[in-house]
Amino acid sequence: MEKFEVHILGCGSALPTTRHNATAQVIDLRDKLYMIDCGEGTQMQYRRSGLSFSRLNHIFISHLHGDHCFGLIGLISTFGLLGRTATLHIHAFPELETLLRPQLDFFCEGMPYVVEFHPFPHGCTDIIYEDRSVSVRAFPLSHRVPCCGFVFQEKPTAAHIKREMIDFYNISFSQINRIKNGEDYITEEGKVIPNSRLTTPADTPRKYVYCSDTQFNPNNVQYIRDADMLFHEATFAEDHLARAKQTHHSTARQAAEMARLSGAKRLLIGHYSARYTDEKILLNEAREVFANTFLAEEGRCFSL
Amino acid sequence: MEKFEVHILGCGSALPTTRHNATAQVIDLRDKLYMIDCGEGTQMQYRRSGLSFSRLNHIFISHLHGDHCFGLIGLISTFGLLGRTATLHIHAFPELETLLRPQLDFFCEGMPYVVEFHPFPHGCTDIIYEDRSVSVRAFPLSHRVPCCGFVFQEKPTAAHIKREMIDFYNISFSQINRIKNGEDYITEEGKVIPNSRLTTPADTPRKYVYCSDTQFNPNNVQYIRDADMLFHEATFAEDHLARAKQTHHSTARQAAEMARLSGAKRLLIGHYSARYTDEKILLNEAREVFANTFLAEEGRCFSL
Repeated sequence: MEKFEVHILGCGSALPTTRHNATAQVIDLRDKLYMIDCGEGTQMQYRRSGLSFSRLNHIFISHLHGDHCFGLIGLISTFGLLGRTATLHIHAFPELETLLRPQLDFFCEGMPYVVEFHPFPHGCTDIIYEDRSVSVRAFPLSHRVPCCGFVFQEKPTAAHIKREMIDFYNISFSQINRIKNGEDYITEEGKVIPNSRLTTPADTPRKYVYCSDTQFNPNNVQYIRDADMLFHEATFAEDHLARAKQTHHSTARQAAEMARLSGAKRLLIGHYSARYTDEKILLNEAREVFANTFLAEEGRCFSL
Repeated sequence: MEKFEVHILGCGSALPTTRHNATAQVIDLRDKLYMIDCGEGTQMQYRRSGLSFSRLNHIFISHLHGDHCFGLIGLISTFGLLGRTATLHIHAFPELETLLRPQLDFFCEGMPYVVEFHPFPHGCTDIIYEDRSVSVRAFPLSHRVPCCGFVFQEKPTAAHIKREMIDFYNISFSQINRIKNGEDYITEEGKVIPNSRLTTPADTPRKYVYCSDTQFNPNNVQYIRDADMLFHEATFAEDHLARAKQTHHSTARQAAEMARLSGAKRLLIGHYSARYTDEKILLNEAREVFANTFLAEEGRCFSL
């Protein structure tokens, strides 16, 4: 199976602590990197992760709260100092460019690469980006300010050709891709070998869904169905349910409820309030509803 | 002697690494805190330091390169989330307010405290701030963009009254401050006790000088004379002298030369280029010229 990993660079909430950085994740899909959110300190966490700077070309920002975007200017600036030449694409609400542009003009003047903004509207439910490996769909979340989630839907891969069949029929290199894409093979003697004998089915395309920040809203299930992994914010435990409602955040139990309702295979929780010095309380609470729950943690990588 | 400490929150240069954060220092003088520069990640380093957030009321920014100011918006925002009510004063070139104001208006709307900017002009050599404990003078450095250093000059303290004299003459509380400030004491019988018998002299006021970023420029000695501690950037070792000149930075040897020429008591070097994985080369080079040199390091505190 090809690589589809989620690297946690930061999983704290609005107040960074000595234990958690502000929000940022990097998805490594077939060796291309995609960043989601970019809180302060993301460039340092990125460096710690050992992930390549040059394989990152797209950044997706969920909403314009500082803990999800204050790290952009530093990251962009550092890429410039390192001599980056490839365009960096930022996908976000239109206000982000308005806010960042004066800083880019001042601090990043003469940089050897271009930062290109790809704005999408509040409430967007469209595919906002796609390439050969993935499509990224935005969908609205329910927060104090306009906020969106992202669905990273892997593109189908070709079928796997059976190694022993290549050898048995002495299939040429030029024929292999055609077979992978579903064609039958015709031997030199004109015999038709059906594709099903030559291949095993392609891997099922995987889906990663990112939901942060949001209050509990079952209406959003329509957008997040059947994720192989659902990341859902779990800022509070149920003992702070009132606070969660007030600040438009979710409890761990609510995150788990969303995983259950949407048929997720696995749930990853994060965006922990600074009040928790041990997130086991959140994990245990979520697992009562949805057993296959995991805790995000800086430096951890989850494979889909 | 009253407290006069310099806490190093970050001492890297333009590219933060896993070893060094971007520039920030906190001076703790008689329990008031003053920040110099505020690179990305400063609020996290500040939290790690254990220093009080509420005792900080003044931030001084040397110049408008990202590694000296990208942490401001996060720090300001966090203070707001923590319910700060006291005005935060930022002393910097006028351009900083122009750049930060739109972000403050957007991200920090409704914050329970005020951020007040105190701009001073490029090339300024004035005292830009003073209170009962300290005066802060700006002076020009020699960098690619307008940049200034800061002289933190402690205000004189009162003389120390001798405990045994208080007891011997049974001096009342109301008289003690007058004696500390230089008056003689007159006993109930009318006998004059000269101040010199009652007190030991006040501690000599101390001076901390901050020079980052700058190329070597002996003309600046006039501003930094006789520091108890001189912080001077030492981005490179002498093997990168050409690069230092080109980028308007200093070598460790040049930093030491400035300490020697200006009659500093101690030299603290920092702002290390990311190319050095061990700063001993910088320390050794500086110590050949100025023995009393120390390496800045995140989390370290230096007492004057």
